[in-house]
Formats: sequence, C-alpha cells, structure tokens
Amino acid sequence: MKNIDFYRSSFLEYIAKQKLIKEPKNLYEPINYIMQLGGKRLRPILTLMACDLFEGKSLEALSAAMAIELFHNFSLIHDDIMDDAPLRRGKKSVHEKWDINTGILSGDAMLVYSYKVLDYYSGEIGYKLYTLFTKTALEVCEGQQYDIDFETRNDVAISEYLKMIEYKTAVLVAAALKMGAIIAGATERNQDLIYEFGRNLGLAFQLQDDYLDAFGDPKTFGKQVGGDIIENKKTYLFIKAIKLGNTNDKKTLQNLFVSQTNEPNKKINTVKAIFNQSGAVTETKNAIDTYTKLAFESLDKIEANEKEKNIFKTFGEQLMIREN
Amino acid sequence: MKNIDFYRSSFLEYIAKQKLIKEPKNLYEPINYIMQLGGKRLRPILTLMACDLFEGKSLEALSAAMAIELFHNFSLIHDDIMDDAPLRRGKKSVHEKWDINTGILSGDAMLVYSYKVLDYYSGEIGYKLYTLFTKTALEVCEGQQYDIDFETRNDVAISEYLKMIEYKTAVLVAAALKMGAIIAGATERNQDLIYEFGRNLGLAFQLQDDYLDAFGDPKTFGKQVGGDIIENKKTYLFIKAIKLGNTNDKKTLQNLFVSQTNEPNKKINTVKAIFNQSGAVTETKNAIDTYTKLAFESLDKIEANEKEKNIFKTFGEQLMIREN
Repeated sequence: MKNIDFYRSSFLEYIAKQKLIKEPKNLYEPINYIMQLGGKRLRPILTLMACDLFEGKSLEALSAAMAIELFHNFSLIHDDIMDDAPLRRGKKSVHEKWDINTGILSGDAMLVYSYKVLDYYSGEIGYKLYTLFTKTALEVCEGQQYDIDFETRNDVAISEYLKMIEYKTAVLVAAALKMGAIIAGATERNQDLIYEFGRNLGLAFQLQDDYLDAFGDPKTFGKQVGGDIIENKKTYLFIKAIKLGNTNDKKTLQNLFVSQTNEPNKKINTVKAIFNQSGAVTETKNAIDTYTKLAFESLDKIEANEKEKNIFKTFGEQLMIREN
Repeated sequence: MKNIDFYRSSFLEYIAKQKLIKEPKNLYEPINYIMQLGGKRLRPILTLMACDLFEGKSLEALSAAMAIELFHNFSLIHDDIMDDAPLRRGKKSVHEKWDINTGILSGDAMLVYSYKVLDYYSGEIGYKLYTLFTKTALEVCEGQQYDIDFETRNDVAISEYLKMIEYKTAVLVAAALKMGAIIAGATERNQDLIYEFGRNLGLAFQLQDDYLDAFGDPKTFGKQVGGDIIENKKTYLFIKAIKLGNTNDKKTLQNLFVSQTNEPNKKINTVKAIFNQSGAVTETKNAIDTYTKLAFESLDKIEANEKEKNIFKTFGEQLMIREN
C-alpha cells in the first residue's frame, strides 16, 4: 500500500533528476536554490495521490506536480521581496542571498518555467491543465493583493477574509489535486469533488494556521508564537473578536493594532485574552471544524477505491492535528 | 488594401473593449494604466498581419496579439523596477506611480493574464501557441539576465551580445509573427520563414537602436542621444570598437566605461570619435544591413500573395528608415 512518504520520495527523486541549472546561471541558480530548500512538498504530493486515486499512472503526473511546486516557490520568492522577509525555511530568502532584482527576474523565469513543464501535456488534457493552472495562478495573485489591501483597512468582513485565504492558499491545493484527477481521466464530478476537498482542507489549514500562530505550543510551532499579533495581522481571530467583543475589547484591539509595541509579551497576552473572552477562539475552532468536515464530506462522495481514499483521510487528519 | 494603420486601429479598438479593471482594483489598475500608455503596438500588429498574410481571419488572431502585448508590457513593468526607471513613454513608470511591490505583483498578474488570454485557443493550434509563447517568454527572461550580467563584464563577445539582443528583443517579434501564422494554419515552412523574418528584423532594429542612440538626430530621436555612452552600456558599437580600435583607443574606452562622468558631452564626443575611427560604425551599419537583408530574404521565400507580402516590406522599411 502506497503512503504519503512513498509519494514524497517519488517527487524528490524526480526533482533530483531535473537539471534546473542552465545558462545564464545567475537566472537559474536562485531557482535551483529555492527548490532545494525543502519544505513538505504537500501540493505536488497531492497531485500524484489524486492521479493514483483515479487509477492514472502517477508517473504521468510528475510534470504537473513539478509545475505546481515551481509556481508555489515562485510565489514565495516574490512574496518574500514584498514582505521584506530575510528568511525562508530557516535559510536566506532569494533576494537576501542575491538581491531584489535577481529575486524579481528569477521569480518571473520560474513562473514561466512552470508553464514550460506543463508543455509535457497536449491535447484535451493539456488544455484543461493549462486553463486550470492559469485560473489558479491569477487567483493566487489576487489573493496576495487582497492580503496587502487588508493591511490598511479596518473594515474587513469575514467573507472578504475567507475569500482572501481561499485565493491565496486554498485554490492552489485544490488545483494540485484536480490536475492529478484530470491526468488520470477522472469524471468531471470526481474532479470537482477532489477540488472541493482541497479547497475546504486548504481553508481549514489556513484558519488553523491563524489559530496556532496565537495559541500554538511554542515548543512545536515552527514560527514565533504571537507573530501575527505583533505584526497587527487581521486574521480570522481578530475580525471575529472585533465583531463579537464588547465595546471595551473592541477599543483595546483597535488601539493595539495600529502601532508597533515595545512590550510584545504584554500585547500578546492582552490580545489573546480578548480573543478568548469574546468568543473569537470558539468561533475560529468551529470554522476549522466546519471546513475540515466539508472537506471530508467531499472526499466521501468521490467514487473511487475506499482504501485509496483512506490515504487522503490520513493526509487530512495528519494535516489538521499538527501543532506546527 | 489593408495597411499598417488598419491593423493598429483594429487592435486599439479591441483593447478599448477589454475590461482590464476588475477586483482587486489595486492589482488591475496598474495593468490598465500601462496598457493605456500607448506605444507603437508593433508586436500585436505583426500578429494580425501574419494571420492575414496566410489567409486566416485576423479577428481570430486578436487574442494572441493581446497576449503578446500584455507580455511585452509585463516585461516593461519589471524591467523599469530593475533599471530604476522613473519614466515610461514619458509618463510615470508603474513602480513610480504606485510602489515597487505593486509593480512586482501587478507584473506577475499581467504575465499570468497573458496566458489567460491564450485560453481562447484550444486543440492543436492552442498547444502550438502555448509552447511557442512559453519558449519565447523564457528566452526574454534569459535575455534580460544576460543584459544584466554584461553590465559587470568586460569581455563580452559579439556573439554573446547578439544572443542577448536576440533573446531580449528579437524572439518576441518573431513569435508575434509566427503566432499569427499558426492561427492561420500556415505550413511549417512558412511559419519558420516568418519567424526568421521577425528574428532578423528584430536584430536589425536593435542594432539600429544602438547606432541611433549615439548617432541619431537629437531633434527626432525619442531618447537622449548618447544615453548608452553615459550609462556605460556595452553595445555593439562599443564591443566592435574595443575589438577594432588601436591600443590607445581601447584604453581610453575602457577607462571611460568604468565610471560616471562630470562632463557628459566631452565623453560622448570622445567615444563617438573612437567609434568612427576604429571602424565600429561601419561594422555596425554593415550588421544592420546584413540582418535587414536576411529578413527580406526570408520574406521573399514565403509562399503567399505578393501584394500581402508588400505590407511586410513596407513595415520593415518604415522601421529601418526611422530616426527615432
């Protein structure tokens, strides 16, 4: 029985064989650098798994998996420039190791390169992959723009926030899965169901990320706990607390989230207390549960081998019980 | 008889109908801004002309023309950031009017959007357009990287310089033409010939740009005459002069091209004199002639209506007798 590690190994083996460094070296070395930095490779694994689920040959899905991973890493290079982030996966970000211009141009080439890898597919399947990939890539750009816009807005509605994380995070997970299904020749209904599984799981994952950023265990959570609070990020917790909190709590939050603090721990504790007492924590946990359930409901409806479907259940469960 | 103005009008009419501004506005407004800045629209016009030449319906080529123009303008947005250029077509560049992050992200979205416009084509024609477009886009990125690399190198060979301008400029002109031919269902031989016409004309055009930058008429040349010399750009003229000049001339050039000058006019005059006396000017003019002739030879070999071919001859001639 294949498991997640099997798919990860196949993908890593495939990447290792790619000759990502070509001329001009200054363009391709940063691409190779970020692709070698590691990461969980969740998205490409999902492409391979989905192809197998619908009885395709997962070897046939490797190029699509690679396109997804290249695109994801392109977006990391450019996001790191925009966020002025010096680190990525604990190592120097591309614009920090080289410079901003290198980050811009290598990122551009990487985006185009993700399309080049898709050249592997032609005919009707190729066309479906191209159009889905493009639609998704545009949504990811739009999601990033909404995220930037929300930084300077105080009236972000929950529905807007959900749309932002859907575009910025969930649709690429969903598309990764659907591309595997397309390659396997799955029915349209099954393609849509696996997309919905990914979209809802992606939303649950991102909401959980918001929650863990404030309430995760500092020992196991990869990033600084309270980072979002220090950076005044208007997460699901914040928006719910503003909506549900009493007048005092709202005022406190609004005052705390417009400036930089000299006492980060005090700010984190105050904000977390309001997140709890306002009911925002409960609502966030409910939302995570809701989207996780919706994901598994979509999975249940898929017409495929139940044993194979279990790998997805395990994947989803592992993802949602994580503490980092 | 259709002429170049006819094709330009069709394309401008088509652009005017596109709803380029969507949500999120901060992402799409910069895209709309640069697309409305004008420019000669040479590339999309060539796509329409090539489609007509091979008896396709030029209306069918509008989406491909748009993809080419979107891609070209995406590259301008990102190049302007990399070059720190405050102006584009006499107006503020995107990153100057908004900011660098907006330039990066809107550029990314514009690149993806150029693929979205290509979704119009499916089947075998769609696949051919996608693969040619991607190959070309990657070459444009590589050309830009070579251009950056050459800034800090003193040993650039003529063959390297020619490859750089081929990738940075000529292949997009060539691809614009070939895409029109693909849509019209031209034979592979004709597709290759029109590509060669565009590639050679693009090379001639860029070499002429190098020449006019130093020797153009200040009254009609759009940019500052001598701009390349002040910026120490290693153009065809410079590389040839280093190769052909005597020991003194070489030393003078090498010394002048490593620092900024306080006396721009003196530097320009000294350098132009060396370009002339070394024979670099003659060689550059010869190269322009050679590539222009190669372009017209390819055109001659194309099997198509001679009257229609004349429009391309006129186009090429108008391009090459320009003084700006």
